Amino acid sequence: MTVAVPLSNHAQEPALAFDAWMRQTQTGMEAALDRCLPAEASIPARLHQAMRYAVLDGGKRVRPLLVFAAGELFATPAAVAQRAAAAVEMIHAYSLVHDDMPCMDDDALRRGKPTVHVQYDQATALLVGDALQSQAFIVLAEAGEGVDAARQIVMLRLLAQASGSLGMCGGQAIDLASVGLNLSLPELEQMHKLKTGALLRASVLLGAWGGKALAPAEIEALEAYGTAIGLAFQVVDDILDATADSATLGKTAGKDAADNKPTYVSILGLPESQALAEKLRNDAHQALAIFGNKARRLRELADLIVQRKA
Amino acid sequence: MTVAVPLSNHAQEPALAFDAWMRQTQTGMEAALDRCLPAEASIPARLHQAMRYAVLDGGKRVRPLLVFAAGELFATPAAVAQRAAAAVEMIHAYSLVHDDMPCMDDDALRRGKPTVHVQYDQATALLVGDALQSQAFIVLAEAGEGVDAARQIVMLRLLAQASGSLGMCGGQAIDLASVGLNLSLPELEQMHKLKTGALLRASVLLGAWGGKALAPAEIEALEAYGTAIGLAFQVVDDILDATADSATLGKTAGKDAADNKPTYVSILGLPESQALAEKLRNDAHQALAIFGNKARRLRELADLIVQRKA
Repeated sequence: MTVAVPLSNHAQEPALAFDAWMRQTQTGMEAALDRCLPAEASIPARLHQAMRYAVLDGGKRVRPLLVFAAGELFATPAAVAQRAAAAVEMIHAYSLVHDDMPCMDDDALRRGKPTVHVQYDQATALLVGDALQSQAFIVLAEAGEGVDAARQIVMLRLLAQASGSLGMCGGQAIDLASVGLNLSLPELEQMHKLKTGALLRASVLLGAWGGKALAPAEIEALEAYGTAIGLAFQVVDDILDATADSATLGKTAGKDAADNKPTYVSILGLPESQALAEKLRNDAHQALAIFGNKARRLRELADLIVQRKA
Repeated sequence: MTVAVPLSNHAQEPALAFDAWMRQTQTGMEAALDRCLPAEASIPARLHQAMRYAVLDGGKRVRPLLVFAAGELFATPAAVAQRAAAAVEMIHAYSLVHDDMPCMDDDALRRGKPTVHVQYDQATALLVGDALQSQAFIVLAEAGEGVDAARQIVMLRLLAQASGSLGMCGGQAIDLASVGLNLSLPELEQMHKLKTGALLRASVLLGAWGGKALAPAEIEALEAYGTAIGLAFQVVDDILDATADSATLGKTAGKDAADNKPTYVSILGLPESQALAEKLRNDAHQALAIFGNKARRLRELADLIVQRKA
């Protein structure tokens, strides 16, 4: 998964190996998220504590990694990428808080910790999710150097669309309606394109828009990449849910089967699911061809998404 | 409450009497909200039906009226005011859907209709609220004539801040924590300043920013006005909750007392609450002095908010 590139081969600055880049980006994100959330002591303190509990110190930060990787295409300023990445991660975190609630998936464990409604209470979990969604738009609409207002509007629109009823929330609604049904493969794909895919695609686009106004061919390539890794992410999630244990995953394994939810593994079987994940990784690589070497991090992330073990 | 102004006295266009202006604005808003929501048939259809159920055909549209009234100060283009008003109203509608849920206020009736979680189910109500919040930002971030990107960013930031943990959601959290407590008057005021006041203030500011970049003195005056009518709105709500019946209100009357929630009436008594509402109406009028005649609709709305019977 890591490619050791000789440091001296790079003209501008020595490129980090992927693992080191990933750790550096994750560490930087933790600090950025901390700065982008209201202080724990500010009123209402319990709400702010719970928001921070939901966001900080957890997760693989796949979406922020995508923002930063796409940012390398067009030299997106670090501060711009950080705000975009923090905003996307807050949307992701809010969706987990709401999805875990008793009226949705009713999950007690997330990232190895009690879920927000278990640790606090349901009303707080509801408000934490609501306030984190607002906070995402606060952060992305912040004044800041390095991005003009016209592009900032595009980024805000992309994030809002990816979050709403024709994006993540819509996928969640289709998912809810699908429990116990025999979804066809195209129906399952459509659901995941919205439920997890929309925000992953948006992460890629936001990272790139932070650098420059994108041309149609660039948007098309990045959307193709985002679609491929979005589906790959879900196929691998389903594979892991069927094959890994709860301790490795940090959440309840085998839950989809127990909940009678359709998955790639239940429809295609395990070997075909693994082949599909590999095909999607290749699709993702091919979509990046027009960007040449600058797309290295995006390629490495496609590999990570398919080869991850948790 | 209505002031009959002779039509011929106005140079530009004949000014409508307040009641006619209000009805015209409300009718226009219904059409604007209809356009700004995803079509009922688009997938996921049930979510979109429920979103429309939550927003359309209901409410006094106080926030849109404030947007349009403030828009008259600086000739905000109608299309810009409509997008801003639709966005604010969607935030308001989402907050009602979530507030009514069993884990919050557990209310079965809203605007004379079953609440969303009663008419649909809790999971749908959760997603309706989430998706309406996203939709508000989609609408406000839409490309459109009549407002430059820099002001659009300011408007997006104002709406997000008014919605989040230091605005509406924060007020809701304080409200939840205050049940059964003896709040002091300043504590009650602080709660309402966030819970309902933040969005009412934002409505005024958005309407004005839609016309031009505001000077500090203009912001200060509009914030003073927004704060006064925001508190007045809540004082009158408490008076009506204590004195009107459910049929008139379109929601359960006497609920605050039954829920043991602190109100202006429970702290100050009825006559002092009525005197406070009147004082706040005067404060609102005085804050508008710098705008002269152009603030007529804002003055009339302050009167409406204090003198309303439901």
